[in-house]
Amino acid sequence: MYIDGLECSVYDREVFQELRDGGLACVTNTVAFWEDAGETMDEIGRWRDLARENADLITIARTADDIEAAHASGRTAILLGTQNSSPIEDRIRYVELFHDMGLRVMQLTYNNQNAIGGSCYEPHDSGLTRFGREVVREMNRVGMVVDLSHVGERTGIDAIEASEAPVAVTHANARSLYEHARNKGDDLLRALAENGGVIGLATYRNISGPWAESRETWCDMVRRTVDIVGLDHVGIGTDLSRKSGDRELQWMRKGRWTRTTQYGAGSAGNPGKAKPVEFMTSTRDFPALAECLTTHAGFGDEETAKIMGGNWMRFYRHVFKG
Amino acid sequence: MYIDGLECSVYDREVFQELRDGGLACVTNTVAFWEDAGETMDEIGRWRDLARENADLITIARTADDIEAAHASGRTAILLGTQNSSPIEDRIRYVELFHDMGLRVMQLTYNNQNAIGGSCYEPHDSGLTRFGREVVREMNRVGMVVDLSHVGERTGIDAIEASEAPVAVTHANARSLYEHARNKGDDLLRALAENGGVIGLATYRNISGPWAESRETWCDMVRRTVDIVGLDHVGIGTDLSRKSGDRELQWMRKGRWTRTTQYGAGSAGNPGKAKPVEFMTSTRDFPALAECLTTHAGFGDEETAKIMGGNWMRFYRHVFKG
Repeated sequence: MYIDGLECSVYDREVFQELRDGGLACVTNTVAFWEDAGETMDEIGRWRDLARENADLITIARTADDIEAAHASGRTAILLGTQNSSPIEDRIRYVELFHDMGLRVMQLTYNNQNAIGGSCYEPHDSGLTRFGREVVREMNRVGMVVDLSHVGERTGIDAIEASEAPVAVTHANARSLYEHARNKGDDLLRALAENGGVIGLATYRNISGPWAESRETWCDMVRRTVDIVGLDHVGIGTDLSRKSGDRELQWMRKGRWTRTTQYGAGSAGNPGKAKPVEFMTSTRDFPALAECLTTHAGFGDEETAKIMGGNWMRFYRHVFKG
Repeated sequence: MYIDGLECSVYDREVFQELRDGGLACVTNTVAFWEDAGETMDEIGRWRDLARENADLITIARTADDIEAAHASGRTAILLGTQNSSPIEDRIRYVELFHDMGLRVMQLTYNNQNAIGGSCYEPHDSGLTRFGREVVREMNRVGMVVDLSHVGERTGIDAIEASEAPVAVTHANARSLYEHARNKGDDLLRALAENGGVIGLATYRNISGPWAESRETWCDMVRRTVDIVGLDHVGIGTDLSRKSGDRELQWMRKGRWTRTTQYGAGSAGNPGKAKPVEFMTSTRDFPALAECLTTHAGFGDEETAKIMGGNWMRFYRHVFKG
């Protein structure tokens, strides 16, 4: 049972077919980066149509049981997720309403400070704000995944402490293994694990550094991460962006907040969209990744199953209500 | 089992207590007159809090079973309703999303023409528009009550024809019994009945005319309406506006669309808020109304039960899915 904790692909039937080819039981998509409530509702509505039009391949999941059922029926469960809290427009009550509309994962901040907390790219991190504590508590109450991936380190640690439910880093790597603003320090990762959380390790080239060289080296990184946080707290969160082009890249990086060039997880010397790593150009590569975890990195079958999806499944079952 | 098809009260614990004192199993409230999507979400969110704070008295219902369960537990089920389609902001996909958020009744137009159709106060009625047909079909699909109360006559008749499910006039009276723009012609009412719909008769003074004189005369009007549309198609829709003051009245009448004086269902000679009829100052008066239908208007116990709630219940069971 393979689960991808986060993708930002531009989905169409071909990409849905790739999910099936890879045997994915579940993937979290991205319905908002900077979008407000109305724009996110437009996108959720569009996903309802996508799900109806491709009902033989995918279904939108609201519960852990939905994921199991999708898997049993040979389809991939989509979890609706956002990479920002912009959809709730700083209204505590919208958390519950977006949950009603099927949203199951929300990253507290994207690349910039907001009313909830600081981002990993801000020079100073506010920590989790007064409103942020309310939002985390409300997300706990309704059963929505608190995602800390792009969130600043201090805000992230605050959120783990504030959260009654386990929280997630859906798509990042360990900073002690590759130094990058988007990656997470060992202190945060250990606190996350203590709270029952999961980190989805990203195959995204810009935050994998030398580990992206080959499937084997990346599986070595998985092994090293397991040494830091423990076997039960590591999953996959590829950050795959299939069919996402420059228009999407500029929206992700610049949104509506700036007119100047922004590099996101890239840099002036690496300004464009990062090429996908060779061993994960689409979710079709999931079975080979699982194989490599066993044959190369020396994980047993049960251990590999936890990393490839079992840990996410346990986590979802804990966080989602009903 | 008493059901009020429409109220626009400003609810607080005292008004909820009145619902209980009257033995109401269900009432449809009004969460929007002119409000847009975001404002309506604010209001729905506020209602979630109201429902939690007053969980001993009320609960928000999403299904006919929810209404039965509320009644069985000695609480009043609230159906979230709007008196306009402004919340969907002309987006077909928002119908499904507001249904997700619990909206179960939507009036196609309030007092003005909109993209869906004409209002009862417009000099010319566009009829149900191209978009309006899509909205009615979508409301049928998701299971939301199409309310024609303030809707223009031609648009209303079009909507009845376009709708696969029964539709409602939640709060109006028969125009052949009292001539008023807000009331409905016999042709529309007969078409409504043929389609399995229900009209909720209003105790609102401005549209009841001389029938408002006493409980007995109003029950005579019920009898006359039953003669027109049949016993299975008449219910109650008081249009009660408990604790609603001038601020609410001006918002209902003027919204954001005009700076000039508007009279709504009143007139220059009757400009203020209409005094509630003496026999329906709050829902506490429901049992006496039921009694009067039997003792004065000569309805049998089963007939009275249909008018006081049974017909709405059958209608809701048909329209709501799941």
